[in-house]
Amino acid sequence: MNDQGNIPTAAAQQLAEMGLEGFPPYLMNRIMGRYNAAVRQEMAVQGLTTPQMRSLAVLSVIDGILIRELAVYTVVPQSTLSRALDPLARDGLIRRVTDAEDSRATRVFLTDTGRAAYNRLWPHLTRANEAMFAGISDTEKRALIGTLKTMLRNIRKHDF
Amino acid sequence: MNDQGNIPTAAAQQLAEMGLEGFPPYLMNRIMGRYNAAVRQEMAVQGLTTPQMRSLAVLSVIDGILIRELAVYTVVPQSTLSRALDPLARDGLIRRVTDAEDSRATRVFLTDTGRAAYNRLWPHLTRANEAMFAGISDTEKRALIGTLKTMLRNIRKHDF
Repeated sequence: MNDQGNIPTAAAQQLAEMGLEGFPPYLMNRIMGRYNAAVRQEMAVQGLTTPQMRSLAVLSVIDGILIRELAVYTVVPQSTLSRALDPLARDGLIRRVTDAEDSRATRVFLTDTGRAAYNRLWPHLTRANEAMFAGISDTEKRALIGTLKTMLRNIRKHDF
Repeated sequence: MNDQGNIPTAAAQQLAEMGLEGFPPYLMNRIMGRYNAAVRQEMAVQGLTTPQMRSLAVLSVIDGILIRELAVYTVVPQSTLSRALDPLARDGLIRRVTDAEDSRATRVFLTDTGRAAYNRLWPHLTRANEAMFAGISDTEKRALIGTLKTMLRNIRKHDF
């Protein structure tokens, strides 16, 4: 390979791809780029943005957390997240409550309407995930999850 | 848990986290959110954006690919990528060449200056990756890479 305009051969491309594919962050960015785009499309049909869908998903398992915690779990900047929550509150899917211990902090709760909405979304969300794991055994998937959990503990800045 | 303003206990939060952590896309978005933020900070110090850094990284292993292929490998929209390449071309790190077979398509080549610049970046890039794999054995890492490769093949839209 040089910079004189030679087109790389298929074999050279394969070799080079093996190089890229030995680097996990490359693989994970490629995978999540596709997964998130698929979910974004599915959610747009349902009238929701990705931060809104992720908020419903996180609250369905950890209800009543602080907005700043929800921002970490959803991987969405807090200012973006606050704006995304406005329509969910307006439509009665969530309730925002001032924290009992800190009047500057807000907790977010899923309402029954919100939980029902999330239960309707879930089949659409699992589709992209199941497609991604086609041909991968439960054992292999469990091992992947175990390694990913260690990686998250290594790299996260919060204690959750 | 309910929506009456009760604060979840630490135990309930732990249980709920186990629920989220059984869902690989959640773990992968959390991990890549932190990893990409760390790399973005490192690269800002070097005067580069993430699309620019990724372009140099991909071209260092697969030189001379089409811009539309580079957009897939870097997981950056083509319009964003084209703008990101302008300063790299101006500073002589890459060369853009009209494709010999399709005059509407452009190939991107790393120059010797670009390759030298990338070699200086590499230690900064590996740091975040190594931090992420602390305490993970080579065997476990190889298994992870194998599973991630299958997942990318399952989900990607291109044949690379």
